[in-house]
Amino acid sequence: MFESAELGHKLSDKEFQKIVPDLRVGLLDAQYQLFKDGRFSVIILISGVRGAGKSETVQVLNEWMDPRHIETVAFDAPTDEERERPPLWRYWRALPPRGKVGILFGSWYTQPIVDRVLRTTRRRDMIQSVEEINGLERMLADEGTLLLKFWFHLSKKRQKKRLHDLALDAETAWRVEKRDKHFFSNYDRFVKVSAEILEETSHAHAPWIVVEGTDTNYRYVTAGKTILETLRGRLADKTKPKASDPPPLIPPVDKVRVLDKLDLSLIVPKGRYEEEMDKLQGRLAQLIREPKFRKRTLVCAFEGMDAAGKGGAIRRVAKEIDPRMYRIIPISAPSDEERSHPYLWRFWRQLPRQGRVTIFDRSWYGRVLVERIEGFCTQADWMRAYSEINEFEEQIVRSGGTVCKFWLQIDQDEQLRRFKAREKTRFKQFKITPDDWRNRKKWGQYQEAAADMIDRTSTPDAPWTLIESNDKRHARLKILKTIVNAVEQSL
Amino acid sequence: MFESAELGHKLSDKEFQKIVPDLRVGLLDAQYQLFKDGRFSVIILISGVRGAGKSETVQVLNEWMDPRHIETVAFDAPTDEERERPPLWRYWRALPPRGKVGILFGSWYTQPIVDRVLRTTRRRDMIQSVEEINGLERMLADEGTLLLKFWFHLSKKRQKKRLHDLALDAETAWRVEKRDKHFFSNYDRFVKVSAEILEETSHAHAPWIVVEGTDTNYRYVTAGKTILETLRGRLADKTKPKASDPPPLIPPVDKVRVLDKLDLSLIVPKGRYEEEMDKLQGRLAQLIREPKFRKRTLVCAFEGMDAAGKGGAIRRVAKEIDPRMYRIIPISAPSDEERSHPYLWRFWRQLPRQGRVTIFDRSWYGRVLVERIEGFCTQADWMRAYSEINEFEEQIVRSGGTVCKFWLQIDQDEQLRRFKAREKTRFKQFKITPDDWRNRKKWGQYQEAAADMIDRTSTPDAPWTLIESNDKRHARLKILKTIVNAVEQSL
Repeated sequence: MFESAELGHKLSDKEFQKIVPDLRVGLLDAQYQLFKDGRFSVIILISGVRGAGKSETVQVLNEWMDPRHIETVAFDAPTDEERERPPLWRYWRALPPRGKVGILFGSWYTQPIVDRVLRTTRRRDMIQSVEEINGLERMLADEGTLLLKFWFHLSKKRQKKRLHDLALDAETAWRVEKRDKHFFSNYDRFVKVSAEILEETSHAHAPWIVVEGTDTNYRYVTAGKTILETLRGRLADKTKPKASDPPPLIPPVDKVRVLDKLDLSLIVPKGRYEEEMDKLQGRLAQLIREPKFRKRTLVCAFEGMDAAGKGGAIRRVAKEIDPRMYRIIPISAPSDEERSHPYLWRFWRQLPRQGRVTIFDRSWYGRVLVERIEGFCTQADWMRAYSEINEFEEQIVRSGGTVCKFWLQIDQDEQLRRFKAREKTRFKQFKITPDDWRNRKKWGQYQEAAADMIDRTSTPDAPWTLIESNDKRHARLKILKTIVNAVEQSL
Repeated sequence: MFESAELGHKLSDKEFQKIVPDLRVGLLDAQYQLFKDGRFSVIILISGVRGAGKSETVQVLNEWMDPRHIETVAFDAPTDEERERPPLWRYWRALPPRGKVGILFGSWYTQPIVDRVLRTTRRRDMIQSVEEINGLERMLADEGTLLLKFWFHLSKKRQKKRLHDLALDAETAWRVEKRDKHFFSNYDRFVKVSAEILEETSHAHAPWIVVEGTDTNYRYVTAGKTILETLRGRLADKTKPKASDPPPLIPPVDKVRVLDKLDLSLIVPKGRYEEEMDKLQGRLAQLIREPKFRKRTLVCAFEGMDAAGKGGAIRRVAKEIDPRMYRIIPISAPSDEERSHPYLWRFWRQLPRQGRVTIFDRSWYGRVLVERIEGFCTQADWMRAYSEINEFEEQIVRSGGTVCKFWLQIDQDEQLRRFKAREKTRFKQFKITPDDWRNRKKWGQYQEAAADMIDRTSTPDAPWTLIESNDKRHARLKILKTIVNAVEQSL
């Protein structure tokens, strides 16, 4: 992995002076084009061994380009708000919007490598992290993000000399920390672990670029040229960046889908309903107050046909929970900031802190429902969403979250009855719009999309619960029971 | 203050049952109207003595209204991200967007009251906090926010009984904490301090509503009715909420303004420039690395006519600073999320953490420059912006920030020369747009607005530095010197 980066590459000052002016103009020019057409974002990851000139390189890149459209983010110890969410949350919040460049310094690679070098994690944790990273980078590439991963390398001998030189010079001595000596003593292991992780994470859509860090001229120009050429290539390619076309989904030839098998005639009488509902609501409120829950989160997602009863069910779930502990996020059209980020960004930003509950009224599944049906995204986009979503939910679960997903199913007659009732009740009229009638005409398509969604995203960690919803009482009780059971099991 | 809330108000169950159905329909109806027309946001503050039923009331409000459009936020101990910013930052980030209801539980009143009751702050700190609160609420009212401040009260006798009852009941005993007993022993002082703060913060635009908390029926209906009536009144009033019309600003009758007095012929020769610039940049980078700076922040704002050299100056300021430590925020049109919040929200959200630097390329002063001149806001809006801005900067300074504000002044000939040069350089062409030529025609208006801005917002804590910018070298050196001096003095 690092052989070519121990050859003592260098570039004379004369050559450097000759190359740099054009390189700078080129970089500025490309950067402004990027900003102007705002089609994609650029992420530059800066990693490597200590002393290989990472921070100087970032400084030079900021000087060569327009730093107003670069966000350089360093990741030190996570803040408490970050610690209480899945590990990748802090990186999601730092993703640059389309049109901008993000330089991530101490990126998602640092922790897995350092932890493994110091043996604070096991090998299988590392493999887990690598998988999460591959998922994230795959998603970024599919969203059109240009991802440049730089690894600045120094041979063992060079690193020793470098730290020594820095320490001797009064102007730079402050930069040599105790940690450096510690890291140096781990050089061999560090390089071994890094090489393995680099190999596992080098892909056509996000290859590693290993740069020898010995000579500053060589290092700066290599980084600058790589960025310029890649960026130019991407800017010239006016086609929407696309994943390979996925095969079409063929519905079962006998047309039997999971939703058809639901028994929509299930009902619960009023007396039993009230009694059970009271108990379940009280129990849920109690569970959320348990000391053990302070280290956990609950994330609920509600999907279903219009008028299937999502809003009413959510109110029943929330009723007895301390309102300070939950948030309900109704999902409609994304804001423009949300639109300038990868699809899942708007949901990541809403993930609860520990001890809290977030209830999504419609959710990230919009990607494979309304966006699929209305053609708001390509087939490639919604096809890859299945695995992106699975990965997203897995990360929530792994960081102490319970994920409950509900599909509320009614039949077409029941929907019509409810639409008409809504039109008659003054404060419900706002709930019925021309969109609802339009969507109703696409009933079959929605059922089709929902069936695919359930097949592809019902995982052991985050299973779908299908709710027969013609009878609201039956639906609400089943939802409450499911949540109470899930939270009980998690504690 | 609390006399009327110790009378033993109550409402029979029969009356309650009679009132509630209509009240709920009314509330839902009003809430949907609010959501649909999205003209303003509603903030409901919940405060009061312990045991007066605050959380139950919030629960009932969430039940009566649609909780999907309510954000209930509780403020416990601040997170570390919050602690490293001005005290009001955490409230700014919790402000609901227009169209939504925010219930703030443990609002900006809690800390000042508790601190004063426990004597961890002095009287003058409390007065300071009250001033900040008054500024915030005045701004919210001017932005059209409907602010409802509830104080739930219990007499001493009632509080004692209430805590006793809760503790006896196995179902509610968990709610009585050690703190409660502690607070109870401070009842008299708590009421005294609260009464004083309530008096100082009760204004026509944000009056306190004191509600006796003894009887649940009375308490819920009073809260619900108050919200409904106020909200209905505001929804019916289709006029844009406005502050009283301010008097017009009369320019000095001799037409001599501060910007005319600048000596734009000042120049610095190249040799001296390079030498001094190197030194200043090195010094600034060093200051930012000082251990003492880890408890401070630096906020710079750059304003000036188009082509006055803001971008170039900013690059010189940033050049030697570790890119992980600073962010440059170029300000252009607000995003739709930003537009749905009070004007200063977009700047609050960018305030740096401790040890960091934020440089704004154009800033909150857009309100009194381009927005004033282009009529994007009313005269009342930009007139009040002067004091809102002063208050904003004061809070940054009080929490350990250094604020440097630069106005870069060139003359019209110089601007023309630069516009033409930009049109000739390929990678600068993007920098010159039809807007620039349009703005140039409004030269006089901009000078006028800038002069007013400088007069009204140059404060001892955050003074303007006027930069003669016909010569870029002179301009950049003066800027660097100003920043270096300011940071040096702050450490």
